[in-house]
Amino acid sequence: MTSPLQLPPAARPGDALSSIDTPALLLELDAFERNLDRMQAAATAAGVALRPHAKAHKCPAISLAQIQRGAVGICCQKVSEAFPFANAGVQDILISNETVGPAKAALAAELARHCQLTVCVDHESQIADLAAASQAVGSQMALLVEINIGQNRCGVTDAPAVLALIEQIQRHPQLRFKGLQAYLGSIQHVRGHEERRAAAAGAAERTAAVVAALRQAGHACEVITGGGSGTVEFDLASGVYTEVQPGSYIGMDADYGRNDFTGTLHFEHALFLASSVMSVGNGERTVVDAGLKSLTLDSGLPLVWGHGQVSQQLSYSAASDEHGIVQLLSPEAERPALGTQLWLVPGHCDPTFNLHDEVIAVRAGRVEAVWPIAARGLSR
Amino acid sequence: MTSPLQLPPAARPGDALSSIDTPALLLELDAFERNLDRMQAAATAAGVALRPHAKAHKCPAISLAQIQRGAVGICCQKVSEAFPFANAGVQDILISNETVGPAKAALAAELARHCQLTVCVDHESQIADLAAASQAVGSQMALLVEINIGQNRCGVTDAPAVLALIEQIQRHPQLRFKGLQAYLGSIQHVRGHEERRAAAAGAAERTAAVVAALRQAGHACEVITGGGSGTVEFDLASGVYTEVQPGSYIGMDADYGRNDFTGTLHFEHALFLASSVMSVGNGERTVVDAGLKSLTLDSGLPLVWGHGQVSQQLSYSAASDEHGIVQLLSPEAERPALGTQLWLVPGHCDPTFNLHDEVIAVRAGRVEAVWPIAARGLSR
Repeated sequence: MTSPLQLPPAARPGDALSSIDTPALLLELDAFERNLDRMQAAATAAGVALRPHAKAHKCPAISLAQIQRGAVGICCQKVSEAFPFANAGVQDILISNETVGPAKAALAAELARHCQLTVCVDHESQIADLAAASQAVGSQMALLVEINIGQNRCGVTDAPAVLALIEQIQRHPQLRFKGLQAYLGSIQHVRGHEERRAAAAGAAERTAAVVAALRQAGHACEVITGGGSGTVEFDLASGVYTEVQPGSYIGMDADYGRNDFTGTLHFEHALFLASSVMSVGNGERTVVDAGLKSLTLDSGLPLVWGHGQVSQQLSYSAASDEHGIVQLLSPEAERPALGTQLWLVPGHCDPTFNLHDEVIAVRAGRVEAVWPIAARGLSR
Repeated sequence: MTSPLQLPPAARPGDALSSIDTPALLLELDAFERNLDRMQAAATAAGVALRPHAKAHKCPAISLAQIQRGAVGICCQKVSEAFPFANAGVQDILISNETVGPAKAALAAELARHCQLTVCVDHESQIADLAAASQAVGSQMALLVEINIGQNRCGVTDAPAVLALIEQIQRHPQLRFKGLQAYLGSIQHVRGHEERRAAAAGAAERTAAVVAALRQAGHACEVITGGGSGTVEFDLASGVYTEVQPGSYIGMDADYGRNDFTGTLHFEHALFLASSVMSVGNGERTVVDAGLKSLTLDSGLPLVWGHGQVSQQLSYSAASDEHGIVQLLSPEAERPALGTQLWLVPGHCDPTFNLHDEVIAVRAGRVEAVWPIAARGLSR
């Protein structure tokens, strides 16, 4: 009968913030750009390469803004995730993770025809698959051996295991040993500044021991890469890492907000989820239109944002799929009216970006741009 | 230089299961169709309309399979979510939730030009917005008043509040009062069968009391709708509901699997997340390529599936963004080799479907179809 229904965009450049249709993911550009500038300045001052992690946001426009400021390239966590970044013109990509099987090796080899690609390995069969796939399409790639510095997830245990893999890599002219991937995610959220410093120092020491043993055996590491937004201040100062991989610093999240950042490097909340009050009962309830399908709870509940800081009046206390319950924190707090737009600080930015097809870039009370989250859902 | 990179599909009809690129969401069609047939037979036998909830899967092909078996239409939880279902030919849609503000009312009014639309309200301002938007485009819609039967989320408290809203609705010829939405999500996962029966009886009683008071005041409810996969057996037998709204029964999930379903109606696990073992350390670890970006943890960890049942040998014990840690449950259990495909039962099907752009429909060891999850991410 009629032509197919088409959803209008949630926001258009120039729109007032109040007219954004919710729920919608927002990036506050002034704070975002200060975060980018601070991180680049710290890396430059330390003489360490900055290779920000794109798994945090999956948005090519964000990576291009980082590269424009001096980042040497990006990390992705999956091979498929890297495809839209390569298409957007990112020329140097590290897959900071292992791939397994001929199908994924073929994706990597194809990707390597479009950018300078580095991939991590921790098993000889991964090397064999990558070698075969690269040879088949005539591409070249660099490999990092991942070492386990305490995460007990991926990575080999010690220098002899690295040497065994280097030997395998060197059998294939289309592959090149480039160095080590050494990341310890579990220490990124150690709350206390001194405790986190000590944990980062331990991780750097374990990494340095492997680097020294490799040097002893005649193998230099061109790249030693790791670190995250929680430990980056210490990673930059460690003298061990040639490159750091922070991701979340671009927007921060409620979980990182619970870290004690008393050092020289700190970042601002720039990522928000705009929601609306959709039900108020008889005036005794505040229900917003954003739940599990707009933000994730794996690192805790979101915080309510207001007047440039975490709200002291309102608290997001429970989520169902498409609803959030907001409570008053004091008897003096006022309930927001039906339809009021409430901004939330997501608990964990990485999986929250992965729920949205676009992020709305805002500045000075207006929508400035709408950026596709082009790698959303790409986990292969 | 070269043409843009294009990701090949993760699976094609006819593929063997072993060649599906992981992580990938799978629907085992034999079990899925048994689930659909059982639910439709139970509703038909009870003389109650079945209006399955599409928020569970966001996939038009699944709704069409339900309607083909006798479902009267579908529920959606958000107005935007309904758009792809209307485009796919679903003709009768209930938005089982409130909308707020003129922008969303305009979406609803546009939707109502393409299908028979019913929307829930719990505040007079929602009625005013829907009336204005409907008038502007010349569409008609039916309204249900949502009543709070214990969830303390949306919904009005009592019959007088419903009557006040009916009076508002009746001022607008383009709107029509159709009945009550009465859903209690919190009792769906009461584990014990008897405890759940008692909780469902309480919810039905509270609903029946409002229905009786409305009848007393001269208002018949054409539709009294509610219920979910956990309580549907009791809802069908209640004599109160004219319509039920179960969603998760299509595939079940690990959380529903913890319910005690000892009654006449039970459903099978048909939804799986195919993952691959991507790292094994020195043979002392099992790491799979599926984490928080492939399934959600809001209702607990996924289970490992094997040989047609929950594995007694392997347990998924921790997730990071793109990794899952699998532990052995007994000293006799064997570690799967690098590259082995492991199927997981997601903890919560609704937000897990919302992470994926497609679900791979499989039968008898082969890919039968690849179905777009067309409403993925549509939460406006």
